[in-house]
Amino acid sequence: MIFNKGQQFEETFCISSEVHSSFVQLFNDRNPLHTDNQFAIERGFTSRVMHGNILNGFLSFFIGECLPTKHVIIHSQEIQFKNPVYMNDALNFTAVVEDVYESVNAVEFKFVFRNSSKIVAKGKIQIGLLK
Amino acid sequence: MIFNKGQQFEETFCISSEVHSSFVQLFNDRNPLHTDNQFAIERGFTSRVMHGNILNGFLSFFIGECLPTKHVIIHSQEIQFKNPVYMNDALNFTAVVEDVYESVNAVEFKFVFRNSSKIVAKGKIQIGLLK
Repeated sequence: MIFNKGQQFEETFCISSEVHSSFVQLFNDRNPLHTDNQFAIERGFTSRVMHGNILNGFLSFFIGECLPTKHVIIHSQEIQFKNPVYMNDALNFTAVVEDVYESVNAVEFKFVFRNSSKIVAKGKIQIGLLK
Repeated sequence: MIFNKGQQFEETFCISSEVHSSFVQLFNDRNPLHTDNQFAIERGFTSRVMHGNILNGFLSFFIGECLPTKHVIIHSQEIQFKNPVYMNDALNFTAVVEDVYESVNAVEFKFVFRNSSKIVAKGKIQIGLLK
């Protein structure tokens, strides 16, 4: 087993205007909270709030590209959004191996996205190891 | 409250080659399971497996664009991937209001993605209603 409980990983992700506009074009989620500064400001936000599911795209990259093996598949994932993320925020992402299930070749990670020191999202993701 | 327990929604989503390639370009997850047919076939799949987080992008569209109000924000979501999805699969998406929390203006949905009649993914998503 190439994963051990407590093993840690770290990445940095930035929601640039290109990431935001590509996500909008790809999935057509033009909800005003994400696309209309005035709408967002009137509801107490600093500006347009970035789509939470952009962070799930970053998780896809983390699992698919940043682990010591490419032989992986996502079984399940969960995320809680704790604070808004704005355009050009650089997010610090950390993940730690929470459990290793050797008998079924599965690994569970806990992860946190932070903006400066503030937690903006956290959750868990379980993967299977492929032959 | 414009949502009622048991209220149902239905959409159809297709993972076209354009959706797949745009997702790959956006998030740079070029894991061979998603980009190399031979790799996927050698591991028992029919062909390249589509990224599970494309389904989370469809959830973004559902919450942002398909509800009777645009005044929403996602609090949390979870998804379990039950069966592989392949390119050009047309997915039937159904969601049902599982709980309404009027005192905190929150609504929880259970959702299922089906490919023909087979469940490919299921989960829950909780939203908050904005003023």
